[in-house]
Amino acid sequence: MIRTNITIGLFGFGVVGQGLHAVLERTPGLRARIGRIAVKDRNKARSLPAELFTFDKQDLLDDPSLDVIVELIDNADEAYIIVKQALLNGKAVVTANKKMLAEHLPELIELQRSTGTPLLYEAAACASLPVIRNLEEYYDTDLLDSVEGIINGSTNYILTAMNRDGQPYADALAKAQRLGFAESNPALDVEGLDARNKLVLLLAHAFGLVTGPEELLAVGIDCLSPLATAYAREQGLAIKLVAEARRLPNGIIAAAVLPTLVAPSHELANVHDEFNGLVTQSGFADRQFFLGRGAGAFPTASAVLSDLSALTYGYRYEYKKIQQNAHLSLAPDAAEVDVLVTFEDEANVPDESDFTVVHEQLRSAQRGNYLIGTIGLGQLARATWLRLPGVCVVRLACPLRAASQAVGARPAIETELVNEISR
Amino acid sequence: MIRTNITIGLFGFGVVGQGLHAVLERTPGLRARIGRIAVKDRNKARSLPAELFTFDKQDLLDDPSLDVIVELIDNADEAYIIVKQALLNGKAVVTANKKMLAEHLPELIELQRSTGTPLLYEAAACASLPVIRNLEEYYDTDLLDSVEGIINGSTNYILTAMNRDGQPYADALAKAQRLGFAESNPALDVEGLDARNKLVLLLAHAFGLVTGPEELLAVGIDCLSPLATAYAREQGLAIKLVAEARRLPNGIIAAAVLPTLVAPSHELANVHDEFNGLVTQSGFADRQFFLGRGAGAFPTASAVLSDLSALTYGYRYEYKKIQQNAHLSLAPDAAEVDVLVTFEDEANVPDESDFTVVHEQLRSAQRGNYLIGTIGLGQLARATWLRLPGVCVVRLACPLRAASQAVGARPAIETELVNEISR
Ligand SMILES: NC(=O)c1ccc[n+]([C@@H]2O[C@H](COP(=O)([O-])OP(=O)(O)OC[C@H]3O[C@@H](n4cnc5c(N)ncnc54)[C@H](OP(=O)(O)O)[C@@H]3O)[C@@H](O)[C@H]2O)c1
Ligand SMILES: NC(=O)c1ccc[n+]([C@@H]2O[C@H](COP(=O)([O-])OP(=O)(O)OC[C@H]3O[C@@H](n4cnc5c(N)ncnc54)[C@H](OP(=O)(O)O)[C@@H]3O)[C@@H](O)[C@H]2O)c1
Repeated sequence: MIRTNITIGLFGFGVVGQGLHAVLERTPGLRARIGRIAVKDRNKARSLPAELFTFDKQDLLDDPSLDVIVELIDNADEAYIIVKQALLNGKAVVTANKKMLAEHLPELIELQRSTGTPLLYEAAACASLPVIRNLEEYYDTDLLDSVEGIINGSTNYILTAMNRDGQPYADALAKAQRLGFAESNPALDVEGLDARNKLVLLLAHAFGLVTGPEELLAVGIDCLSPLATAYAREQGLAIKLVAEARRLPNGIIAAAVLPTLVAPSHELANVHDEFNGLVTQSGFADRQFFLGRGAGAFPTASAVLSDLSALTYGYRYEYKKIQQNAHLSLAPDAAEVDVLVTFEDEANVPDESDFTVVHEQLRSAQRGNYLIGTIGLGQLARATWLRLPGVCVVRLACPLRAASQAVGARPAIETELVNEISR
Repeated sequence: MIRTNITIGLFGFGVVGQGLHAVLERTPGLRARIGRIAVKDRNKARSLPAELFTFDKQDLLDDPSLDVIVELIDNADEAYIIVKQALLNGKAVVTANKKMLAEHLPELIELQRSTGTPLLYEAAACASLPVIRNLEEYYDTDLLDSVEGIINGSTNYILTAMNRDGQPYADALAKAQRLGFAESNPALDVEGLDARNKLVLLLAHAFGLVTGPEELLAVGIDCLSPLATAYAREQGLAIKLVAEARRLPNGIIAAAVLPTLVAPSHELANVHDEFNGLVTQSGFADRQFFLGRGAGAFPTASAVLSDLSALTYGYRYEYKKIQQNAHLSLAPDAAEVDVLVTFEDEANVPDESDFTVVHEQLRSAQRGNYLIGTIGLGQLARATWLRLPGVCVVRLACPLRAASQAVGARPAIETELVNEISR
């Protein structure tokens, strides 16, 4: 393979854009340089010569000397326009914009096909961790059962600061923003929407399932209650914001983002601060775990760099599993989950009839109100009480499962693959 | 990219060979089938029709209908002859034979270049974990500082059985053999030689450093003493067999396989049973950790499968770093390490003058004899007392470091990359 030199048209010079510039400076081995940078604010001081900057996107998109567009802005709608036009102009694109990707994935896949131009986005899921590349390449022929992970760095940073260091929620959030981990709009992080956008990407590369973010249930950490936190502590469990996608019998995929109780023996219990972690379970390789920084200037830029490097030798996503796994579909009503629901107010209570089984409940002026039960994933997503003030939902420490298994004994949390062959 | 169908000539039908057959049966998506199998023992019963088998290697190597040779035998010398001839015959090769690879790597890299035929070996390091592929592809342009890992499944299985489950060494080893984790010759595992062979592969793909196994110090777990085990327990540390390669200042690479004390907060402390784990530390991505099964029929076969899949779309190792990092060299005399040495016999004692600093020592008929000190890595490798009966060497819980840092304060165990850029 012949490596090519590349000249980059860079959109955005914020946390990640500046990180990429710094990283490229120290990576002479990759023959890539930034030719021009488009930014928005005419009044901001810049650390690089003014002639490198422009405020007109066409200066980059129409410049034939720029081979690759790297899109690192914090506006998903504008990013979509930029990326689409770049692909149509035959310019390869690298982006970290999970919101834009999740909202337009089917069209962006089709655009890659029709234009023959690659779009890479390793930095958009788990920053430094090569999860897209691994799901795309490595499990190609393996029978993947599940992907579960902590895939939003800011919320994990906040949860760690609250639980390990005893910081109040607001302080922890402010610090995550100061350190450059949080999205410009922190609601994306704390409401679980950023994790949901990434889950859309994982679903496409893990299972070949292309779905819109709005089809996935996401509950964030913004309304975690003191009662839920106390329950977790009492049980010796950690609350983590976990995104999970799991293949259930009959070609059903269940997927959701939920605050989840995690046992100390679970790999995700060891994911601290802004780190991300992903556990994959597959038929032959069995259980694997990847841990690395999920946010920040350099870790995110390093993934952009790795995509740039991959472009220099012709790498592109093939989305093989979209064909391979055409028999799979998202069916929240065929899946169920065990949850703890806490609620403050007698007016805002969960509707018991939504639950398949209610295992335990308490209403106490002194100790608080809660309900532990099994509920269909679709039912939970539709529940109006889910978004009422003072209502907090936390998944118990067990995986999403098929609804038929509902009543009766709880399934074992982990199934271990036993080698059938021994010497 | 156009995927091709492949017909496999398979050498070996033991643990991994049978695993591969089973895995291929259940992976119709990969258009690969086994055309012929070469084995050794004419009297062994086989689970497949007799006409599939042959005892003559030329039946596979000279058969033009076989595109890919998969080499899964337990004899490194014969494997070398097979792999070499296959490449010369223009047949792509997938192998899991780390011993063969480590002993012939320079020639095998040159053969790939001169014949233009690929040789892939993901299964040879950390079985199911895609470490070679990630080191080769992902860190291409990143500044890798270190790779440290538990890369031998059998010894980790044995250490786990001994320490967590209180099993005696011999029982634990026998069980690892029964489960198919151990090499046919268990000395390769317990003497640290298998890990050393894998370290040769990691060095090539992480740092572009191609070296022979005999140039690397390897100490195994076969002579761990009760005193060392007690010391570890007292300090709340686990003894793990750790392979480490680290870039020190001035282009020096230090690398060794040593039983090592691991703190509970270290990622490798959570690697149990036959799992393998690898921690990489790099300039921008910072710290990453990969965990997965390091041995066994299916996990190993899954890595072979992933290589087969990669072959169908033209993947090959490029060994880019061999050019990029020509300025790096292995220099054990420029590195040093802190060790605990225990010894049983007054005749077999470590030579104090070999140590840069002796921090502590005890000779007690009742409590036993030990010495804790700092020693040059080259000096330790040359020490005649290292291999004397009753002598046990365990590395303390700190990384390999440059010899100049020797005297004085111990360096901090972890250096954290601090983001220089914030919003
Ligand atoms: N920060 C992280 O840790 C992280 C991790 C993974 C992925 N990401 C993703 O990376 C992207 C960038 O994040 P960030 O943290 O670097 O954001 P940021 O620090 O807020 O920077 C945003 C940059 O985009 C520029 N910009 C906004 N609208 C623009 C437009 N229409 N045209 C040109 N430039 C425009 C801004 O210009 P001005 O400089 O003129 O204001 C600014 O330079 C986002 O998609 C984010 O989701 C971030
Ligand atoms: N087991 C693991 O977990 C694991 C993990 C990673 C890598 N590996 C590597 O994978 C390879 C195979 O290991 P294994 O555990 O499968 O070994 P195994 O169970 O001992 O099987 C060895 C196979 O090789 C065959 N064989 C030996 N010499 C031969 C020759 N000259 N020509 C043709 N066939 C020959 C044997 O034939 P017969 O059947 O006739 O005896 C047997 O089928 C080794 O390189 C090992 O290091 C193993």
